[in-house]
Amino acid sequence: MKHGEFIKNVIDAIGELDSAAMKKAAARQDSLTKPQGSLGVLEEIAIKLAGISGEVFPNLDDKCVIVIAADHGVTRHGVSAYPSEVTAQMVANFMRGGAAINVLARYAGARVHVVDVGVASPIPPISGTSFTSVRVRPGTADISEGPAMSRDEAEAALAAGITVAQREISSGAKVLATGDMGIGNTTASAAVFCALTGIPPIEVVGPGTGLEAEKIAHKIAIVEKALTVNRPDCRDPVDVLSRVGGLEIAGIAGVILGAAAARTPVVIDGFISGAGAVAAYRLNPKVRNFMFASHLSEEKGHRLMLQAMGLKPMLHMNMRLGEGTGACLAFLLLEAACRIQREMATFEEASISGRSAQ
Amino acid sequence: MKHGEFIKNVIDAIGELDSAAMKKAAARQDSLTKPQGSLGVLEEIAIKLAGISGEVFPNLDDKCVIVIAADHGVTRHGVSAYPSEVTAQMVANFMRGGAAINVLARYAGARVHVVDVGVASPIPPISGTSFTSVRVRPGTADISEGPAMSRDEAEAALAAGITVAQREISSGAKVLATGDMGIGNTTASAAVFCALTGIPPIEVVGPGTGLEAEKIAHKIAIVEKALTVNRPDCRDPVDVLSRVGGLEIAGIAGVILGAAAARTPVVIDGFISGAGAVAAYRLNPKVRNFMFASHLSEEKGHRLMLQAMGLKPMLHMNMRLGEGTGACLAFLLLEAACRIQREMATFEEASISGRSAQ
Repeated sequence: MKHGEFIKNVIDAIGELDSAAMKKAAARQDSLTKPQGSLGVLEEIAIKLAGISGEVFPNLDDKCVIVIAADHGVTRHGVSAYPSEVTAQMVANFMRGGAAINVLARYAGARVHVVDVGVASPIPPISGTSFTSVRVRPGTADISEGPAMSRDEAEAALAAGITVAQREISSGAKVLATGDMGIGNTTASAAVFCALTGIPPIEVVGPGTGLEAEKIAHKIAIVEKALTVNRPDCRDPVDVLSRVGGLEIAGIAGVILGAAAARTPVVIDGFISGAGAVAAYRLNPKVRNFMFASHLSEEKGHRLMLQAMGLKPMLHMNMRLGEGTGACLAFLLLEAACRIQREMATFEEASISGRSAQ
Repeated sequence: MKHGEFIKNVIDAIGELDSAAMKKAAARQDSLTKPQGSLGVLEEIAIKLAGISGEVFPNLDDKCVIVIAADHGVTRHGVSAYPSEVTAQMVANFMRGGAAINVLARYAGARVHVVDVGVASPIPPISGTSFTSVRVRPGTADISEGPAMSRDEAEAALAAGITVAQREISSGAKVLATGDMGIGNTTASAAVFCALTGIPPIEVVGPGTGLEAEKIAHKIAIVEKALTVNRPDCRDPVDVLSRVGGLEIAGIAGVILGAAAARTPVVIDGFISGAGAVAAYRLNPKVRNFMFASHLSEEKGHRLMLQAMGLKPMLHMNMRLGEGTGACLAFLLLEAACRIQREMATFEEASISGRSAQ
């Protein structure tokens, strides 16, 4: 109950973009030594960041990717190419700095904060790593037979995501990214997205970590069964998350809500983050003001997820790893946009002629 | 004549990818803690770089973007939104470090080398800048009335590009990018691409720096006229470059040939670089082994150019500035790919379970 009220307050705190700052940022862009609009999305990023922060020269020096991990009861139906134990093993890999997300975060100058919101087996802490344990439950129940978790548990996972985002922002983060780890979570993400939109599973379910073609039909059937058995209410995203979702998907939705409420930009990774983002978007469509799509995942339904929120991906890299890897690459592009805004010369400074009279 | 033989030797020196190194690089990728293939294009980059360099762990620490500038006689027909004098003014801006390419190169850790291969008015040198003056002629003639330049001049511009690439590689560059500056050069680039492929100008010509819609019809007519008046020979890319091309377009083709012959990866920017790349590709299709497409330009025919070479862009940013700006953003992605290859833990190192038996 207390989680419900906490979440509602955060949702209600999400505001509009600062249109005065955006006008100033756009005027700055138009004064720089390039044809107006010719840097395309880089210009849009700088202007949107100004609308978020109220600053004409946004600063994203402190970047943090929040990787949320949890397990999935549905894995017992063979919906993933990897066994469940890999979730905990990969969390340990994140904490030792050996995973793809660590490499890309280091390059992008970002911190990695790992959150265990429901890995089946407890994670042994490693000193010196940024790790939060908020184990709501040791993985979800099998969604093909009943609800993934209770409504209270879904709210606890959402609240955990919000709290981690708030804490990172309080300690200085100027931009967040969402990441995930959880064997089985493309199944739950597909179920969440299908439940929220009514799009049939056959258009959304993909091979995940690398399922063979013949097993994908089985995965589709499992998602269909989860929707039939649980009858999630599409008008109630928390109901959807609790019945067919995952703890990390709810946590990611929480990170997005927490970032948006704190007027902090948040970069969305691929398919799992997309499911969390659509849930957050349905809780308050204004989160869109604070979100940036990073890449177009190779996983089948991701394009539909981005379309559902009116977001466009910058990177087309056929990636399908998750962890926040695509979002970390997009950090590089957001930083580039900030530097263009700050460092380019204006037409006046460079004594360059304007457009010809036409 | 001496240019012709020099160019021929370079074209003939372009080789195949090292398949043994690629196999080793792919095996390394498959040993890293992620589902095989899940990093998509990042994996392909690492493997292709291994094929280029022969090194399983490619190193791109020393990056250089070569920005080639020249003027275009055809500008007197109002085919650009900006006056010709902007070419020289922007070259000065590059040398003072105030342009978009300078900002993005600094962020990507790349040097900028500016080449004047035919700006209408001589560029005053600025000490401390990396600048080469190889003024083949002070801009092209009006391609709608006759050839842009002589065959000798086109070969001189090609040779200039090759020489600059060779010099940068000798002084340590491990990866090059192509960039351009030249008011009017989207007109010449469209003409080159249409001449090489037979694709009609209406499918290729776009607004360039920002031409109003009604002026684009005029620009299409100018390109059509250039093709009719000059009758370039589509089987002879040097003939095409000399009749309807630009000095910087030939220079860019030279940079690509020079890089490929020296087994050095070269990142291709947008529409102008695309025209130069297609010309280089027609001189020897093996250049494709050494090229990376960066972004999909907003300029109309760019998608067709990349298709003509079988290359796929990584970035979809609606950019249309040129200068090498999109290629510089792609440097960040190539560097990320190298770091994944070098820094990620293997399944064995991280004690992570492999795929389930299926």
